[in-house]
Amino acid sequence: MNQGPSASPGVIDLLGLLAYAELGSFFRLAGDAVLAPSLRSKGQLAALAAAEQAHYQVLRDRLEELGVDPEAAMEPFVAPLDAWHERTAPQSWLESLVKTYVGDGIAGDFYRKVAALADEETRTLVEGVLAETGRAEFVSGTVRAAVEETPVLAGRLSLWARRLVGEALSQAQSVAVARPELAALLARDAGDGADSGGLGDLAAVSRMFASLTDRHAARLEAMGLTA
Amino acid sequence: MNQGPSASPGVIDLLGLLAYAELGSFFRLAGDAVLAPSLRSKGQLAALAAAEQAHYQVLRDRLEELGVDPEAAMEPFVAPLDAWHERTAPQSWLESLVKTYVGDGIAGDFYRKVAALADEETRTLVEGVLAETGRAEFVSGTVRAAVEETPVLAGRLSLWARRLVGEALSQAQSVAVARPELAALLARDAGDGADSGGLGDLAAVSRMFASLTDRHAARLEAMGLTA
Repeated sequence: MNQGPSASPGVIDLLGLLAYAELGSFFRLAGDAVLAPSLRSKGQLAALAAAEQAHYQVLRDRLEELGVDPEAAMEPFVAPLDAWHERTAPQSWLESLVKTYVGDGIAGDFYRKVAALADEETRTLVEGVLAETGRAEFVSGTVRAAVEETPVLAGRLSLWARRLVGEALSQAQSVAVARPELAALLARDAGDGADSGGLGDLAAVSRMFASLTDRHAARLEAMGLTA
Repeated sequence: MNQGPSASPGVIDLLGLLAYAELGSFFRLAGDAVLAPSLRSKGQLAALAAAEQAHYQVLRDRLEELGVDPEAAMEPFVAPLDAWHERTAPQSWLESLVKTYVGDGIAGDFYRKVAALADEETRTLVEGVLAETGRAEFVSGTVRAAVEETPVLAGRLSLWARRLVGEALSQAQSVAVARPELAALLARDAGDGADSGGLGDLAAVSRMFASLTDRHAARLEAMGLTA
């Protein structure tokens, strides 16, 4: 296996970020299940959480295979991801569902974009980890049904979705500042190769996030919410 | 498949109890990981939690296969198991490890004893679910190392282990009162067939719990604690 190019600092950052994000999703889903209204939905959330743990394991194993200390690779992303979760603590079962759907959706689009710029092995791995686990339908269907039953929820949950995105963008910017190699990897995508490095890369991160909004709007619509 | 005898009320109680216990263990392990001192041990706990979720799924599937509503089968055990967890909320990472080891150990011995009295298919299923997941060594080794480093912990954690057992016995008694079919299944083991039913069964449950103490003592020793 050709490990040299795979282990570029940007790719290690990507794998470390994604691994900690999956571990965080696992804990969040497991914790949110306390808010779940029935034994059955608690069980469904537990299954979703276990799927995240399996993803975490794949990414952690890959980092080890690359000769990288997995915890060291995750460490730089602990603070920004924890901060995002702290600032977006759901106050209800529905808020936690919207957070799962919106957060995972944006994060998934983001990881796929970064992975497309990495080596093939990393790309295949990341796409496998991000493959649908059936969660999206479960979550969007549940939210849509609740909004149809109680239309007043639409406005409140739409605002909540907007806040989730705003906080995510803010954390992404701070990650881009702290991890220049990752930002440089992103900048390649935005076609900013020429002025790459420093402020050019930061602007590229913003542009990339902006480009994610189409799919975000589609997700809101699937839940019966508006942008 | 011969489903008739497998679906006796005592067996359904056993599967429902075990399924909810596994779901509870999943949530507890995931929640306790907040106390875990490092990213690495958080990841290890997440893996243990995911293994519990897989067990829960096997038991839930089996209940469905038997034509039983899995949530209805679990329901009677929600209050006693939740009460046990509430009364034994760990105040530290080490307490949570001791709880995992002692609680799972006693519960495992208990389920194995009941399963030995059920039909073969149930027995095989329960034994598969209870098979070692590598957790015991991880947990007992971690506690033993901590006690060796800080001997004063031994007394405190030994007391904690005693309380865990006392609370478990108390909840088991209340389950035995509420679920006579399950108690009758247990009474068969204690050779109380003659005076089975009512108080005879309740006494049998106590005797069965008492018979579990040998293995409990061995587990305490493995952690460097005393009975």
